[in-house]
Amino acid sequence: MKPQSAPDPAVKRLSLYLRRLERLASEGIAKVSSREFAESLDITAAKVRKDLAWFGQFGSPGVGYRVAPLIEELRRILGTDKTWNVILVGAGNFGRALLQYKGFRKKGFELVAAFDIAVEKVGRQISGVKVHHISKLSQIIRRHKVRLAIVTVPDHAAQKVAEQLCRAGIKGILNFAPTSLRVPSGVAVDPVDLAAHLEQLSFQVGSRRRK
Amino acid sequence: MKPQSAPDPAVKRLSLYLRRLERLASEGIAKVSSREFAESLDITAAKVRKDLAWFGQFGSPGVGYRVAPLIEELRRILGTDKTWNVILVGAGNFGRALLQYKGFRKKGFELVAAFDIAVEKVGRQISGVKVHHISKLSQIIRRHKVRLAIVTVPDHAAQKVAEQLCRAGIKGILNFAPTSLRVPSGVAVDPVDLAAHLEQLSFQVGSRRRK
Repeated sequence: MKPQSAPDPAVKRLSLYLRRLERLASEGIAKVSSREFAESLDITAAKVRKDLAWFGQFGSPGVGYRVAPLIEELRRILGTDKTWNVILVGAGNFGRALLQYKGFRKKGFELVAAFDIAVEKVGRQISGVKVHHISKLSQIIRRHKVRLAIVTVPDHAAQKVAEQLCRAGIKGILNFAPTSLRVPSGVAVDPVDLAAHLEQLSFQVGSRRRK
Repeated sequence: MKPQSAPDPAVKRLSLYLRRLERLASEGIAKVSSREFAESLDITAAKVRKDLAWFGQFGSPGVGYRVAPLIEELRRILGTDKTWNVILVGAGNFGRALLQYKGFRKKGFELVAAFDIAVEKVGRQISGVKVHHISKLSQIIRRHKVRLAIVTVPDHAAQKVAEQLCRAGIKGILNFAPTSLRVPSGVAVDPVDLAAHLEQLSFQVGSRRRK
């Protein structure tokens, strides 16, 4: 096992594999050939094998992948075999949409609290999640043993919030604010840059037109 | 020029480079050494050079990158030197948050119309964008020469909506629905899997703990 050395893109593809396997499981499919599996993801079977090989020995020649055990293994590798408590900072439009998003809980992430500075938001419940004043951050992070946070505050407030989160013990930040965050080593930041997604599409549509 | 053959991760990093350069420009910085630029992104200078080399010759030894011209070049490569008209299908929580999101317009994407099937939403204006009934899709796509669409409908409705979009001439789909879409070749889909972002953080936080 050498999970530390697996390259980022391989780790990213684990989520993709997991999604596909979960879909197969929901369709009642118990086994899938490695070729069929790879083709359904528009990837080569060799690449799937190589990605998985960073983490162990999966699949067998002539049988392919057994869906349920591989789902379990991938969840263990990604760390979502257990539930993570997650907080959200910034109960604006995006924050509220994310609190109502059902996709997180299904994948092992439980939103336990939200935070804002606006007095009119504090005390409200959104999809069963209570909005607290930001001054309660440390207290609630400690109480729920939270390690992951979602940041949906405006651009100019994001760096300050990130620092508060790090001081309070947060180790991973999903950042929706359109700005990059400086955090101490030992804290992971994953930026969600929505305009960058559209830029990628713009590039693809443009380069097809140029062909 | 060989833009067709640049690998996906290199194209993805162009957005990252563009963001960093836009930030430098906003700070009034006109030039940046290639080492300083790369380090600020936690990438090697060699990788930045290699990525850019897919698209031309940028930067000069001893000078580094000139910020404004490189921003212009990257926008041209990504296709965002012009404004793209974009529509959104699904005016639920996410859809509404995205309609209010200011990050798109700044990067060259103009949301021109939204669509839904719910009678109570049709006719409303959200952040200045009108919500139309889905039956108006083709008409409005044609009128505004739209090529890009954002899909924020529920899981079970996403495939049908994708088919309607493709028939109406859409060439790129940003998919927020937690399901994979089957589209004809010639149409690009970029899935935004929010739970996968948290999985990546969960992996990183977990593997640091194992160290």
